[in-house]
Amino acid sequence: MASQILPLELIDRCIGSRITVILKNDREFTGTLLGFDDFVNMVLEDVTECQTLPSGERVKNKLQTTLLNGNNICILLPGSDGLD
Amino acid sequence: MASQILPLELIDRCIGSRITVILKNDREFTGTLLGFDDFVNMVLEDVTECQTLPSGERVKNKLQTTLLNGNNICILLPGSDGLD
Amino acid sequence: MASQILPLELIDRCIGSRITVILKNDREFTGTLLGFDDFVNMVLEDVTECQTLPSGERVKNKLQTTLLNGNNICILLPGSDGLD
Amino acid sequence: MASQILPLELIDRCIGSRITVILKNDREFTGTLLGFDDFVNMVLEDVTECQTLPSGERVKNKLQTTLLNGNNICILLPGSDGLD
Amino acid sequence: MASQILPLELIDRCIGSRITVILKNDREFTGTLLGFDDFVNMVLEDVTECQTLPSGERVKNKLQTTLLNGNNICILLPGSDGLD
Amino acid sequence: MASQILPLELIDRCIGSRITVILKNDREFTGTLLGFDDFVNMVLEDVTECQTLPSGERVKNKLQTTLLNGNNICILLPGSDGLD
Amino acid sequence: MASQILPLELIDRCIGSRITVILKNDREFTGTLLGFDDFVNMVLEDVTECQTLPSGERVKNKLQTTLLNGNNICILLPGSDGLD
Repeated sequence: MASQILPLELIDRCIGSRITVILKNDREFTGTLLGFDDFVNMVLEDVTECQTLPSGERVKNKLQTTLLNGNNICILLPGSDGLD
Repeated sequence: MASQILPLELIDRCIGSRITVILKNDREFTGTLLGFDDFVNMVLEDVTECQTLPSGERVKNKLQTTLLNGNNICILLPGSDGLD
Repeated sequence: MASQILPLELIDRCIGSRITVILKNDREFTGTLLGFDDFVNMVLEDVTECQTLPSGERVKNKLQTTLLNGNNICILLPGSDGLD
Repeated sequence: MASQILPLELIDRCIGSRITVILKNDREFTGTLLGFDDFVNMVLEDVTECQTLPSGERVKNKLQTTLLNGNNICILLPGSDGLD
Repeated sequence: MASQILPLELIDRCIGSRITVILKNDREFTGTLLGFDDFVNMVLEDVTECQTLPSGERVKNKLQTTLLNGNNICILLPGSDGLD
Repeated sequence: MASQILPLELIDRCIGSRITVILKNDREFTGTLLGFDDFVNMVLEDVTECQTLPSGERVKNKLQTTLLNGNNICILLPGSDGLD
Repeated sequence: MASQILPLELIDRCIGSRITVILKNDREFTGTLLGFDDFVNMVLEDVTECQTLPSGERVKNKLQTTLLNGNNICILLPGSDGLD
């Protein structure tokens, strides 16, 4: 079996680094990963939420420490500092 | 492994403090956290619900003690006194 | 750890008192709480369902004893006699 | 702890009596309750399905013995012979 | 406790007979029940799918042996040969 | 109890034969069944995806080996080589 | 019983190769599979997300290492380098 990178391993390596998280309702957050649990609930700090308006314009909001519910997370981009 | 902050730890530290809770249907509540359980069902008091109308206008309603169903919670902002 | 109020404790204290229950599809019921189980299925009596029409008008229907499915409950307001 | 009426107890008492069942997609059935199981799957006979058209008009269909999937049930009105 | 008819009992009695199955997305199938399992996945043969178009017109398609996923089933009408 | 055909039995007999699979979002795939597991995740080869456009037109795409997530499967038509 | 290819076996063989993943909300990703776990959460690198605009136009975005939540995955095309 080819050596592989397990999903939780990848997230674990990302603690203390930047990460972009996209939820099932397409809401998008970029921040520094402080921690996560077995349900992939995630704690981020120094967070920016980026919303794409119907016009395509990208609006950014600064947030403080943020906790995201794992069962609503769709896509993770470890090491990403945002999609713009 | 870098030291990390576990999600439930973060919520636990927030008991007695202000917190903003955003549900999967985007309803947004800010209040003082009185307690929570393993399913992250949450009890808040001195609560304000903030609704963003299609026009973008923000409408606020004062609520008494409020219990939010954990499986409908999407985002938590510990220490936040609202997003305005 | 600060002392806290657990969600089920809060509901338990509400037995015999008025409560407002908002479902995930925004349907809103106010009644006297007769009982509930571990899945937070709830039995209410002397119930009023309050529907907000697109026009914003609030329409009220009197219902007899009502049982609400816990996995569809989003928000509980113990002690509330309705949101108007 | 105040004495309470447990949800399944309430349904159990309703066997042989009329009941109105509203599903998560707002479909509404009234019939005589023949039985139910732990998942609150329900068997009704002498059933009328009542649909509210966009115009507000209420259309009724007679059905024979009907089985409703418990995980799709939202509201139960034990003893009700319909909402009109 | 009044004698009752349990849901799975009712389905079991229907093996070899006609049944109408309505899914959560309102798709409607009538066929002869060949078998089912504990998750109420169902095997039907000699099947007609009946679709109601926005105009209200009812369109029918003949299908061969069909297997329906239990967790998507909403309503069962044992003994029914269709709703027209 | 009348002899019955169990759902997984029916699928098992279909290995190596043609099958049409319809997902909960109405996407429709026809292919040769190579295998499946207890969650009814399915492996198909020599696959055609058939999409019905709003106009009613049927558009077909050839795909290679395809794996379908069982919890998103709604309807199976064992032995079917497509619905046209 | 005819010999069959089990879904997880198929994914396992794909480690180190190209794969296209389509989510339940139709978002489409193609990349090299680095690893996956029992929940079919998947790690891809050298990733392209392909979005089909309402006009039918296909827009491509390059992404770095990407983790996809297994419970949101609908369709897998092992060995595929994209659907164009």
